[in-house]
Amino acid sequence: MRERQKPVVAEPAESVSGLSSEFLESFKAAMDLCQTDEVQRQAETLHPADLADLLEALPSEKREDLVDLLRQDLNPAMIAELDEAVLERVVNQLSAQEMADAVAEMETDDAVDVVEELGEKDRRDVLDALPIGERTLIEEGLSYPEDSAGRLMQRNVMALPAHWNVGQAIDFMREEEDLPRDFFDVFLVNPTHKPIGSIPLSRVIRTERRVALSDLMLEDMKIIPGTLDQEEVAFVFRQRDLVSAPVVDAGGRLIGVITVDDIVDVIHEEHEEDIMRLGGVGEEDDLYSAVIATTRSRFFWLLIHLLAAIVASYVISFFAGTIEEMVALAVLMPIVATMGGTASVQALTVAVRAIAMRELTVSNALRAVCKEIIVGMLNGLLFALLIGAVAWSWFGSPALGGVIGMAIVINLTVAGFSGSALPVLLQRLGFDPAVASSAFLTSITDVVGFYVFLGLAAFLLL
Amino acid sequence: MRERQKPVVAEPAESVSGLSSEFLESFKAAMDLCQTDEVQRQAETLHPADLADLLEALPSEKREDLVDLLRQDLNPAMIAELDEAVLERVVNQLSAQEMADAVAEMETDDAVDVVEELGEKDRRDVLDALPIGERTLIEEGLSYPEDSAGRLMQRNVMALPAHWNVGQAIDFMREEEDLPRDFFDVFLVNPTHKPIGSIPLSRVIRTERRVALSDLMLEDMKIIPGTLDQEEVAFVFRQRDLVSAPVVDAGGRLIGVITVDDIVDVIHEEHEEDIMRLGGVGEEDDLYSAVIATTRSRFFWLLIHLLAAIVASYVISFFAGTIEEMVALAVLMPIVATMGGTASVQALTVAVRAIAMRELTVSNALRAVCKEIIVGMLNGLLFALLIGAVAWSWFGSPALGGVIGMAIVINLTVAGFSGSALPVLLQRLGFDPAVASSAFLTSITDVVGFYVFLGLAAFLLL
Repeated sequence: MRERQKPVVAEPAESVSGLSSEFLESFKAAMDLCQTDEVQRQAETLHPADLADLLEALPSEKREDLVDLLRQDLNPAMIAELDEAVLERVVNQLSAQEMADAVAEMETDDAVDVVEELGEKDRRDVLDALPIGERTLIEEGLSYPEDSAGRLMQRNVMALPAHWNVGQAIDFMREEEDLPRDFFDVFLVNPTHKPIGSIPLSRVIRTERRVALSDLMLEDMKIIPGTLDQEEVAFVFRQRDLVSAPVVDAGGRLIGVITVDDIVDVIHEEHEEDIMRLGGVGEEDDLYSAVIATTRSRFFWLLIHLLAAIVASYVISFFAGTIEEMVALAVLMPIVATMGGTASVQALTVAVRAIAMRELTVSNALRAVCKEIIVGMLNGLLFALLIGAVAWSWFGSPALGGVIGMAIVINLTVAGFSGSALPVLLQRLGFDPAVASSAFLTSITDVVGFYVFLGLAAFLLL
Repeated sequence: MRERQKPVVAEPAESVSGLSSEFLESFKAAMDLCQTDEVQRQAETLHPADLADLLEALPSEKREDLVDLLRQDLNPAMIAELDEAVLERVVNQLSAQEMADAVAEMETDDAVDVVEELGEKDRRDVLDALPIGERTLIEEGLSYPEDSAGRLMQRNVMALPAHWNVGQAIDFMREEEDLPRDFFDVFLVNPTHKPIGSIPLSRVIRTERRVALSDLMLEDMKIIPGTLDQEEVAFVFRQRDLVSAPVVDAGGRLIGVITVDDIVDVIHEEHEEDIMRLGGVGEEDDLYSAVIATTRSRFFWLLIHLLAAIVASYVISFFAGTIEEMVALAVLMPIVATMGGTASVQALTVAVRAIAMRELTVSNALRAVCKEIIVGMLNGLLFALLIGAVAWSWFGSPALGGVIGMAIVINLTVAGFSGSALPVLLQRLGFDPAVASSAFLTSITDVVGFYVFLGLAAFLLL
């Protein structure tokens, strides 16, 4: 949610974007000297988002000290801004009642966001400590699937009857207390509370009081089902340049609104997921997670790569005799594998990105795969000449140059095919195309590379 | 910019997000049958963003036919939504005057965005064909550095004198014609046109007419210099949950406004850049670029990897004699290299993400690198046991198991160190940490892996 209600005077603490490292250093120094008044004063002048960044940047002992110092009136907006790993540690320091008090002050979307990140037990304790009204709203939000529109929505919506005019709308907005803190669109509803159109707020304010709202209404409005996946929601917002969108329940009734600030966070999360998966690390693996947790989360992925590498080694072992006769093969074989692996990761990256952007679909997959095969073959031919020449001049054997050249062409063509076809296939089968692809791919290009290179050598050179 | 002014009736053409593949198929079929009326009718009912997606999804000959069919009244908003590679081809089909007519109808931020993507000659021709007023505004936008706030801003700003009250503001907004199409915040300026505060529009509309605007004003406002990098701007928007922010010139005067829909696009671009660079492909390498352009853009990166692979081969060649005596080394050596490469890419991914999120800075770099070294060592020990056991049982040599175990521990520790320290170093030196890191890194772990494994084997086993 937007958080701007508290005007603060000039903040020398920060540069235009984020906390300055000078501020961080002086703040840490003040903590070291136990200047608690100064520390408290500085922390209180910070914007909640900056305070959250400050907590994240501090080493864990200092972070605990600061939370203790501020726990009397911990800003709920700050808690909503914390990174998941840091939030977990801050929550451990607070009582369930303290957390519940903070959560009760948040808007529903932030509250659901914080509560869903808590562990099973913490979640129960905090929910139990909440007033029944807030608790019900949060539990309703949590009843929607993880990463769905229902989890992102703010329950308080600016909805008006479609038969009102601008004057009635403005009078209502001035008189009614219980409205969203900030809103950008007015949604018009019919008597069964189904949304029938939207009006950007700037058009309401620019129009004479006597004009009917229905005359301003845009019917071409995207209506978001509460169960829609957040990735789809983000796509709609980005494609239509939306600032807010209405959310409906299974019966089509308006139950909430999603605002663009939450979508900005979703886009970040989804991209991070892609990057982390392509890089073979877990989503929870970040700067703030502990050494043991990090080691464990990486172990699994390394194990997959180990199994793939063992398969490649097994292939090499078929040709142990060939290598003994011609050790140049052992020297050159990593080149074939490296080039194939690189080319397949290139094709994979483009495919994963295109799938995320909705550019690569079933209808053009064949075209995309064919293109990658041709690109692989062309670069294969270019590098065959280059590497063939290197091998020839290095080991003085034109035949060896020819063999490695052929292996390169074949391996880069296979790389283009598998790097584009595998993510499409995974997507089709309902898996995330970024996950596991790179391990499978380098395994394919290693095996093909070693097999083709050593096999051709055994057949043609010996 | 937001584009919602045209109410359209129900669009069976699309699912909630994007075009359905059924629609695509039926549209293509209509084109094949040359049902031009039907094609035109269907295209005209589409939202501009959907029409842009449709053009992107069509094969190039069909795309050209469709542009010819629609060229009488090509929707400027559709052009603004096109992907760079497709835009280039559409521009080639249109005359400079046709492009200028479309650009003149766009808001300044969209117009700058389209014009900056044109080639040098096209850009000049289109600018020359523009009315002088639009041309000046666009050239002013282009005078700001690429990827800066000045390129993103919309020139038409909702700015009001700070001494007005709500009633005056509402009357002005109702009477003035030349206002931004949609706006979300009102900016208050002093007599020298410097921004002194902002008010969310919903607070203006909810307040009695007699209240002074200065009483509603939030002073804690982020002011964006026109020269600020777009990545910094995006950080500010995300961190503060902003919907719009004022842009000032070097003298601090208000010259424009950036809205969140442009920021959503920036966040996408920046993330894509990261993914593409980590994957070793150029930014312009997407589904729509031609085979030759793609081959060329990948060639460079493959060449870097080839040079790295040749260095690794050179290291292996030192130990040719060792391998001849013990061919098991050639069989096992790719395992050491693969594990090191995987571990270093894991550390790199986490570091690149943390740098992008502003979590990893100079002040905590040492801590992050130390953590990665420990994680590398711990996983190194675990995999040393595992791989050592495999090597022992496979080749019946406990000593060989011990040697490969030692090599794994050393290589994974080096991987943790270099995977985290290299991106921090590149960032410090002013380079993008994602670019080139993965080629350097796998080169480091290949060289270290082969050297340590074969060197230890030569020293201890023979």
